[in-house]
Amino acid sequence: MSHREPGGAVTLATMAGYGWISLTTDYGTFDGFVAACHGSIARIAPGIQVIDVTHHVPPADVARGAAVLAQTAPHLPHAVHVAVVDPGVGTGRRGLVLTTPSGLLVGPDNGLLVWAAEELGGIEAAHELTNREWFLGDVSRTFHGRDVFAPAAAHLALGAEPAAAGPSIDPKALVRLPDPVVSVGDGWIEAEVLTVDRFGNVQLAASGDLLAGLGSELVVNGTVRARRGTTFADVGPGELLVFPDSAGQVAVAVNNGRAVVVLSVRPGDMIRVAERQ
Amino acid sequence: MSHREPGGAVTLATMAGYGWISLTTDYGTFDGFVAACHGSIARIAPGIQVIDVTHHVPPADVARGAAVLAQTAPHLPHAVHVAVVDPGVGTGRRGLVLTTPSGLLVGPDNGLLVWAAEELGGIEAAHELTNREWFLGDVSRTFHGRDVFAPAAAHLALGAEPAAAGPSIDPKALVRLPDPVVSVGDGWIEAEVLTVDRFGNVQLAASGDLLAGLGSELVVNGTVRARRGTTFADVGPGELLVFPDSAGQVAVAVNNGRAVVVLSVRPGDMIRVAERQ
Amino acid sequence: MSHREPGGAVTLATMAGYGWISLTTDYGTFDGFVAACHGSIARIAPGIQVIDVTHHVPPADVARGAAVLAQTAPHLPHAVHVAVVDPGVGTGRRGLVLTTPSGLLVGPDNGLLVWAAEELGGIEAAHELTNREWFLGDVSRTFHGRDVFAPAAAHLALGAEPAAAGPSIDPKALVRLPDPVVSVGDGWIEAEVLTVDRFGNVQLAASGDLLAGLGSELVVNGTVRARRGTTFADVGPGELLVFPDSAGQVAVAVNNGRAVVVLSVRPGDMIRVAERQ
Repeated sequence: MSHREPGGAVTLATMAGYGWISLTTDYGTFDGFVAACHGSIARIAPGIQVIDVTHHVPPADVARGAAVLAQTAPHLPHAVHVAVVDPGVGTGRRGLVLTTPSGLLVGPDNGLLVWAAEELGGIEAAHELTNREWFLGDVSRTFHGRDVFAPAAAHLALGAEPAAAGPSIDPKALVRLPDPVVSVGDGWIEAEVLTVDRFGNVQLAASGDLLAGLGSELVVNGTVRARRGTTFADVGPGELLVFPDSAGQVAVAVNNGRAVVVLSVRPGDMIRVAERQ
Repeated sequence: MSHREPGGAVTLATMAGYGWISLTTDYGTFDGFVAACHGSIARIAPGIQVIDVTHHVPPADVARGAAVLAQTAPHLPHAVHVAVVDPGVGTGRRGLVLTTPSGLLVGPDNGLLVWAAEELGGIEAAHELTNREWFLGDVSRTFHGRDVFAPAAAHLALGAEPAAAGPSIDPKALVRLPDPVVSVGDGWIEAEVLTVDRFGNVQLAASGDLLAGLGSELVVNGTVRARRGTTFADVGPGELLVFPDSAGQVAVAVNNGRAVVVLSVRPGDMIRVAERQ
Repeated sequence: MSHREPGGAVTLATMAGYGWISLTTDYGTFDGFVAACHGSIARIAPGIQVIDVTHHVPPADVARGAAVLAQTAPHLPHAVHVAVVDPGVGTGRRGLVLTTPSGLLVGPDNGLLVWAAEELGGIEAAHELTNREWFLGDVSRTFHGRDVFAPAAAHLALGAEPAAAGPSIDPKALVRLPDPVVSVGDGWIEAEVLTVDRFGNVQLAASGDLLAGLGSELVVNGTVRARRGTTFADVGPGELLVFPDSAGQVAVAVNNGRAVVVLSVRPGDMIRVAERQ
């Protein structure tokens, strides 16, 4: 945005802000916690629209929260993305505002935001969130979603500069989750299970591009026959499919079935996909 | 839309579009799938408001999705209703845009949309959804909610003509779910269980109007005494009520209890309601 | 509301209404009930924004609904708060509109609204909801959320006067829930469990201010050692914390654990917190 000064010079206006805020938490929907965050936003920035990514991250499961946010944020409009999976609330852990080319991220410094930042184009700047003028009333020691992160996001969505959040931080100093294990060899991929979705599809930490190096007849974990394809109908009912999923990851599915049951795995387990001999 | 001017010329009116989109899916809320659909809409049509009908249709249960949408859509504002319960994603199954007097429906051609279309006044036109200009980037082979149906709905809500979606289809050629079984005799009704709600109320496929033909003292499934009425308080605590429910269907409830437990039924089972001898 | 005209006279402004409606129900999200309520609002007042407090109040658990609404409403913008936990629907139980300094409350006269009204500054006026012009079509005998309460809230949000809802009621005549039990002695508090949240934290009916009267070394229910603090990190992993929670109540938590499991309690049970001897 720019405007013309009376004298005629064009000046750059301050940040335009964002029309959207997204929320990702482990708060569930049985209590009023999520609504209180919506309330904090609505009271400060009533014209900003909110998209709930999910509030069903398992309690304190930072890696799951990081994965779902990283896979969803690129499909949202440019936004201030708030994420709160925060077992360290009330300790010395820092609050953050991360700037990326495609939006801002607000939440605790425990690794929750970093994968999403990378999906949004990388961290251009990081600031510690210390500006108490943005916080709500007496900040609860246990509910920073309502009192700290949502209000900060509202101010940022309205156009406040990330630098106003607090001191700059070296992005290299941010807390990071360990990178999930991925190994690639001649005719095989080994990777950690990143997540299992509602349909029982098993998503691996390996990028879907890696499938290009494999043939079409595969075996999973040494014993289960599978086929490489792109959609469920590429295999018969009850058969295993290895495919690049809608988030761009290698995933294993069963046509008309649940791969998680067939493979009996859970997040963190290793899976080996190899060409059949 | 067109109208005839007094002078006789036909002019195209500007499309009004719709201010609302509704979403009905089996995606659940534990993953970011629903948010990604909201994102697709927000990126194309940020001023359109979205109502979530439910995302807890059991995975691949097309009949349940069709029933909940048919019973809810008439109570929403005129909208573009998107429904995605889509076990055939990635096969040759068609995508559809159905036009009704009270709104549009967008989703797969597997029977999911037809009951709702009938509740909204009937199918005035059907178009196959093939216009790739409406789709998002590289269309995932497994996530048409995000990449095909939500974006199409956004374009339609903004005022695009349904005919721009793709070729016209004869409504008679649409895939239909089997009609649920309903039989009516002298003093009795037999009907399939359509759905069981959160309160344990058992909804039958029979229209509530049929109750007018029955007396007030009833027996359900040959052994369980019940009374015809209009609300829970028409029977004593623990007693069975047969009534026209808020969707206009025959339903069985227990005052302060759960009819589904008393009757031990599930969707698809037959229930017989008869006058007591 | 009043404002001073330039000439100095004070005039009453017309009611501004509210920009927001909140919804609290026991409808769950598996059926289309919540969407139908959103639809009722959207059809009457499409510009009003809606915040869902929760729809997962256990069926017919009026006290739980009252507690979650009372703890959440103060953190929302000024709004018309609709709550429907309504086992008496279809009986003679009254519908209500309560006026407070910080918003309106709409729902059944069964105690559901009163605690929230007190948190919002107290009941300034109470009206029975009888104005059938506000109701939708043929009012269902079983679904007043869709047909009565949501539409009334929409009219009120648009600026209708609460007095237009129906006859005035003496606030003393409203149905009230029994006050939860709280006893305080020299060095101890005994209180009913009000609720257990998603993280297993156990919230008591006692106000957090009462903790000021206790020392820092405590025992819960006679046998379990605990410490008074303000946040989870004030105790070691697996240890019990007694603290004022984000709703201002006494609560018991376990650092990295679930207090509800350690204490084996549920809502309505009594808990005794005492100084350690």
